[in-house]
Amino acid sequence: MRKIEHIGIAVKSIEESAKVYETLLNTDIYKTEAVESEGVKTAFMRIGQSKIELLEATSPDSPIAKFIEKRGEGTHHIAFDVDDIEAEIERLTNEGFQLIHQTPKNGADNKLIAFLHPKSTGGLLVELCQEKP
Amino acid sequence: MRKIEHIGIAVKSIEESAKVYETLLNTDIYKTEAVESEGVKTAFMRIGQSKIELLEATSPDSPIAKFIEKRGEGTHHIAFDVDDIEAEIERLTNEGFQLIHQTPKNGADNKLIAFLHPKSTGGLLVELCQEKP
Repeated sequence: MRKIEHIGIAVKSIEESAKVYETLLNTDIYKTEAVESEGVKTAFMRIGQSKIELLEATSPDSPIAKFIEKRGEGTHHIAFDVDDIEAEIERLTNEGFQLIHQTPKNGADNKLIAFLHPKSTGGLLVELCQEKP
Repeated sequence: MRKIEHIGIAVKSIEESAKVYETLLNTDIYKTEAVESEGVKTAFMRIGQSKIELLEATSPDSPIAKFIEKRGEGTHHIAFDVDDIEAEIERLTNEGFQLIHQTPKNGADNKLIAFLHPKSTGGLLVELCQEKP
């Protein structure tokens, strides 16, 4: 794990939340991107070597819609940057962590990603991210 | 806002969670510290230019105990590193954010801190941190 790649924050509407987060962080959204497989729209802001990713559901059965329904808006996941996502999946599996994705899949922002199950991390939804070659 | 200073994670027991987070992040806790005014014990791990702070309640009326009772273990707050916390409090107040602390107070890890009210940040509990001179 090299750094916090980003913190994913579930919001009802990126349009409505953009101004709040841009003002809070004193910076602008530099990219928005839809990830159709996850049923989300995303918007990214830079903060030091990390990013804040706003997540808006694009369908009522998106994991983000379900999260907001259950817990309200707020931190959805924490993503860590790794050099070699396959090696990291293997290391964490061997250590007894439960991976939601045993093989990396395509995520937003040109990344290969895999999520860990929050059951094995004491309630924290953790994402591994590797920049695509 | 210069960087994510740390992510605060509420846990029932630092002793029980330490191994999980140390294994996940592949690093060791480098400091533990009690903040009596907040009714918490803290434990810090480094990750890139940021930290993960585990938070354990030391009394049943600690904000961390109440948080876990309501939402379970997981991300409690996000702390941003600032150059000048008083200037940042003034900037955010002028922008309409609601500060829990209008003047900085002493926090863990040699920091001056102030929290923003989650009402004004769409549900996110945000901490400002300035390294003490």
